Amino acid sequence: MTQTEPRRASEMPAERSDRTQLLDSFFAPRSLALVGASARPESVGHAVLSNLLGHGDPTAAFGGPIYPVNAAGGEILGLRAFRSLGEIGAPVDLMIVCIPAPAIPALIAEAGRCGVRAAIVISAGFAESGAAGIELQQAMMRAARAAGIRIIGPNCLGLIRPAIGLNASFAAATPAAGGIGLLSQSGALVSGIVSYAENEGFGLSAVVSLGDKADVDDSEMLRWLAADRATQAIALYVEAFSQPHAVFDAMAEVARCKPVVALKGGVSAAGARAASSHTGSIAGSQAAYTAAFAQAGVLQAQSIGDFMAWARALAAQPPAPGKRLAVLTNAGGPGVLCADEASRQGLELATLSPQTRAALDRVLPTVWSHGNPVDIIGDATPERYRDALRILRAAPEVDGIVVILTVQSMTDPLRSAQAIADACAACSDHEQLRRIPVVSSFLGQAGTTVASHLDRRGIPEFDTPERAVGAMAALMRRGEWLRSMPVMGSADAVDGSGVAAARAQLRAGGRPAAGGALDLAQARALLNAAGVRYNASAVAADADAAVACAERIGYPVALKIVSPEVLHKSDVGAVTLGVHDAVGVRQACAAMRARVLAEVPHATVRGYSVEEQVEGTELIVGVTRDPDFGPLLMVGIGGIFVEVYRDVAFRLIPLSRRDALDMIGEIRAQKLLDGARGRPRVDRERLADLLLRISDLVKDMPEIAELDINPLVATADKGLVAIDARVIVAPATGC
Amino acid sequence: MTQTEPRRASEMPAERSDRTQLLDSFFAPRSLALVGASARPESVGHAVLSNLLGHGDPTAAFGGPIYPVNAAGGEILGLRAFRSLGEIGAPVDLMIVCIPAPAIPALIAEAGRCGVRAAIVISAGFAESGAAGIELQQAMMRAARAAGIRIIGPNCLGLIRPAIGLNASFAAATPAAGGIGLLSQSGALVSGIVSYAENEGFGLSAVVSLGDKADVDDSEMLRWLAADRATQAIALYVEAFSQPHAVFDAMAEVARCKPVVALKGGVSAAGARAASSHTGSIAGSQAAYTAAFAQAGVLQAQSIGDFMAWARALAAQPPAPGKRLAVLTNAGGPGVLCADEASRQGLELATLSPQTRAALDRVLPTVWSHGNPVDIIGDATPERYRDALRILRAAPEVDGIVVILTVQSMTDPLRSAQAIADACAACSDHEQLRRIPVVSSFLGQAGTTVASHLDRRGIPEFDTPERAVGAMAALMRRGEWLRSMPVMGSADAVDGSGVAAARAQLRAGGRPAAGGALDLAQARALLNAAGVRYNASAVAADADAAVACAERIGYPVALKIVSPEVLHKSDVGAVTLGVHDAVGVRQACAAMRARVLAEVPHATVRGYSVEEQVEGTELIVGVTRDPDFGPLLMVGIGGIFVEVYRDVAFRLIPLSRRDALDMIGEIRAQKLLDGARGRPRVDRERLADLLLRISDLVKDMPEIAELDINPLVATADKGLVAIDARVIVAPATGC
Repeated sequence: MTQTEPRRASEMPAERSDRTQLLDSFFAPRSLALVGASARPESVGHAVLSNLLGHGDPTAAFGGPIYPVNAAGGEILGLRAFRSLGEIGAPVDLMIVCIPAPAIPALIAEAGRCGVRAAIVISAGFAESGAAGIELQQAMMRAARAAGIRIIGPNCLGLIRPAIGLNASFAAATPAAGGIGLLSQSGALVSGIVSYAENEGFGLSAVVSLGDKADVDDSEMLRWLAADRATQAIALYVEAFSQPHAVFDAMAEVARCKPVVALKGGVSAAGARAASSHTGSIAGSQAAYTAAFAQAGVLQAQSIGDFMAWARALAAQPPAPGKRLAVLTNAGGPGVLCADEASRQGLELATLSPQTRAALDRVLPTVWSHGNPVDIIGDATPERYRDALRILRAAPEVDGIVVILTVQSMTDPLRSAQAIADACAACSDHEQLRRIPVVSSFLGQAGTTVASHLDRRGIPEFDTPERAVGAMAALMRRGEWLRSMPVMGSADAVDGSGVAAARAQLRAGGRPAAGGALDLAQARALLNAAGVRYNASAVAADADAAVACAERIGYPVALKIVSPEVLHKSDVGAVTLGVHDAVGVRQACAAMRARVLAEVPHATVRGYSVEEQVEGTELIVGVTRDPDFGPLLMVGIGGIFVEVYRDVAFRLIPLSRRDALDMIGEIRAQKLLDGARGRPRVDRERLADLLLRISDLVKDMPEIAELDINPLVATADKGLVAIDARVIVAPATGC
Repeated sequence: MTQTEPRRASEMPAERSDRTQLLDSFFAPRSLALVGASARPESVGHAVLSNLLGHGDPTAAFGGPIYPVNAAGGEILGLRAFRSLGEIGAPVDLMIVCIPAPAIPALIAEAGRCGVRAAIVISAGFAESGAAGIELQQAMMRAARAAGIRIIGPNCLGLIRPAIGLNASFAAATPAAGGIGLLSQSGALVSGIVSYAENEGFGLSAVVSLGDKADVDDSEMLRWLAADRATQAIALYVEAFSQPHAVFDAMAEVARCKPVVALKGGVSAAGARAASSHTGSIAGSQAAYTAAFAQAGVLQAQSIGDFMAWARALAAQPPAPGKRLAVLTNAGGPGVLCADEASRQGLELATLSPQTRAALDRVLPTVWSHGNPVDIIGDATPERYRDALRILRAAPEVDGIVVILTVQSMTDPLRSAQAIADACAACSDHEQLRRIPVVSSFLGQAGTTVASHLDRRGIPEFDTPERAVGAMAALMRRGEWLRSMPVMGSADAVDGSGVAAARAQLRAGGRPAAGGALDLAQARALLNAAGVRYNASAVAADADAAVACAERIGYPVALKIVSPEVLHKSDVGAVTLGVHDAVGVRQACAAMRARVLAEVPHATVRGYSVEEQVEGTELIVGVTRDPDFGPLLMVGIGGIFVEVYRDVAFRLIPLSRRDALDMIGEIRAQKLLDGARGRPRVDRERLADLLLRISDLVKDMPEIAELDINPLVATADKGLVAIDARVIVAPATGC
């Protein structure tokens, strides 16, 4: 049994483009040339040729002609070596290159004349190695474009297509054929995963080490794997995308038809340093990548272990129809640990229906646990596993099953594995309609024949119960994503987007000519134009005027210094809240002025802002510009807690309404949004409207470099009210 | 090389008690009887006998005499079976029992007459199976005490002492001898870990399945393992301790000389339901166990994978002298992932000194990373690993090393493993003085000869980089604990503990006779007596009196309803903050009264509390009574954020000053305590004083069932000020 994700025609990727078809030469070449083949055992050219030849095992070797090329000619590993490509005199589809970089541009040109369609450049010494290398890479790409040759690499480990014995890499082994397509920026990670696959017995459909991505990049390869029938799930390791937006589009397209798991290496310290404000320091590149994965429907793993486990589960099992887990076990303690882990992962333990319990009563000894985890006791026979599993698979209250086995002296692990696989293979009418995923953990059986039996029959087997529950959680998240998948390309505009008004506002002089922070009045005018309600306020030149303003607005009021030099007002005592009368206004103005001038001696105090004081839950909404992905929107719990708990979520701009609601849903303090302890409930739809407005504004106004509304107060009666905002704009230009 | 934790004489456990020595009969018996031995292959009695006999391999069998006992006599697995214990006619140290429960009390009495010292009762059917079983268990224990026999079990998997071939269990295999002592409440977990040990090639010093703990329990066994020379680290799986306080004392004593790793199964839902207030719902049994482990210096794992990984690392390697990690790798991507994981685990990446870099320059090719991770490139030879590792081990800026290897075609993994072990075995003068731990991850080599070579030579080898970094984090946390270990048994009293005054206060009628919540005035008086400063306040019978009180205290004031029926005042609008004048006082009193009577119609409004309003950081301090561990102290961020972020830490009462400071240090919002954004800094020493005062109070006053101070405001100028408190007392009795 190989279970795959159910697919609707509407979700299939579009017709394969010519460009995608061109990549077929990499994965299904009729003939190969290896330029730089070598007889020296420690050389890369020898390692690649040995892999192509299956290390002497003809069933493991590439089936078509292999032409070693070496300027010295002679014979290498039993094959005639050609002195040049031209000497071959037969068609070559794919060329693998491991000669020194300087000779490669000319080689590519020659390859074009010989009809080569595709080249894997393993050699290093290009753009990663300085100015001369950059020139060399440009020369190589000019030659490739002229010749119509596509290039993977340079500086990569190579490519493996196990099903046809094509191991065009210097990995130490060839993995078995299976359902996972692996795409990796790191060659070393490919080596590692090939070792895991060999050791743990899982298979791969295609393995591509992309290296420095001079030509073929993640986005094209993702689309190729999406169209590849052998690939059931895609595993993507990345440190940085070369064209982030193109890869984002490809991920979003591909994840609609095939599950994609990503592992991001390296939190970008450089990106964090570049950010100039506290929002920036929270954001940085890591937040942008995480946002991109979430928005595209890609599951982001945080470790190699999860990366492989999730990919294996998603390649072998259908997405789960819900989040209700059943645990079937012969072991009490490990069953308890599954329940603990399920709770950590946000899964529910299914409550078994009376029907299910009665059915289990009929096949199990009376001492079974009569609940979930379904503990079928230490002396469980293979038949007991089979019968219980059949019943659980048919139970409508169960969305996914984790099967646990510990080996005790009476246990027959191999027959139990067979019985479990049999129970999953049987397919009643009901199961045709509603297929639920099953994964297993036989403790301490990794790499044994028992584990590989399960894996071969499509039940992903994991070494520990927590890993199995984690893999099931991935299947459940995948199912959830598919159920709520938005219509692709749908626009989620809000009515009355105020971009035009906001732009007019900035053009009318509402910004510092040299760029920098807008002052309070400018920021207020901009946001008001964009449709974000600011609290009622007025600016007073001195304390007398402030009293007049306060009486007009009504007490209590908040007072703030107006000074372009003061960014974080509360840090320097430039804010006074809860002022209730005229005496208080005069006192506050004097005290704040003294404090600000003591802290920021060069500050110019332009006056006092007198503001309506509103009560409610403090939120923050912010925008930064990520160096990779461009504008990034943040929402979270505001006030001083922004820095303390960093309870914020990010999405790339532009965002859909679903993205807006998703990011609101990622805030940890959901209880606060729901109105904890008598606080007003935050209206999520109105907050989503506001996020879409900000998204519209920033998307169309690149001159807004950063924007922070903090706090944005969710009130009981006045909706969402901005209390303070900081907007940084680029210098004014003619546009 | 077997590296063990350096030990000072002062840290060694006290002389082994007689009671502890009695347990020796379990682990070093000269002769065995197996009562219930059986020739039926599917029986437990057959499985245990097969294990004792090493499954036919005499080198794996128990070395002393083994006497099978079966009422039918005859021969079992080649041994003469005796009809009764008495028929043996030779000394028997240890008896293993797998006959039905009803016959066991008489058997124990007979065993006493035959000189048996210890019995492992594998059979079930005792206290876990109802009233008759409880009686049977009592009868068994009466017989055991009369006969001077110690009992492990009943209802357990048995016991294994690999070094002497003693497998007195029905586990499916006998693990190799090694440094981990495993103590488990769950027999199935023992089975699982025996499978892991067999499959991954690590060893165990002793394995004990404690079962229902009728006699020997965790605390005795912990002390025995602490005194056992073969045991380097203790791994403890528990769902619930039978005598929590005794086990806590034993853990605290044992963890001073040997590392202990615990895995707690099962969050107690029952305990959570029992708790009647919101503090209780946060606390529950899980919090108490976590507090107990932290306080005792036991490392708590959250998964089987971490449990084993940490125990393996702690058994084989010394604790780390600091938190600065070096990563040595032939693989860029996995090195990056190590750095990411180190950051998640709160470790630092060591900054290499110029001396260390220069030394590495001399032995590495120029392309090495020149930083940490120390990337010695994909073609790294064994010698390169050896030389770089020697330099890093001698570097004073490095406190621990994770070695990563991915297998590429040029890699020699076995020789690299040997070179790494060689580099760790070499011991310069410097290394004698400052031994730092080394762990490794060779990707995809789990269970291979490469992995077992490293493990056998004392380098714990893990399948993934993140697991290796996690194990190193455990070694670093262990080192940190040892460096700051408090003097055992030292009291940490605070001056002027007000227990006597508080008790007098309650006795003087300051409590409801029927028990329940103290009213505001009672709670205030109690805490003031205990030395906790409450904000200035007065209670007024009506609005006119409230105005008078407010004028005396000074504006602004906070107003609250006084009503014993209203527990969570802010939920029902019974609190008004920031009242600035007489008009405001009158308005607030009327409005609050109307709201409360609408929400809680049976409420009696006894008046209004008028309180000094203070500003600062809101904390919470609470006490609940855990059903297992008794009084439990909580501290964290207060106000509405208690429920939203649950940023609280727990310790068992009584606590030491170190515990108090530790729990303050566990609060996630450290930035807030440090005085984020112009807030006052919280004085940790004064907060610790207050926690110790509360600990004293509750320890000596069992009549205090629950106590919550929320908020406790840390002010800039007035210290810590309680603003609201809720105290639940037991009904008054004569005492």
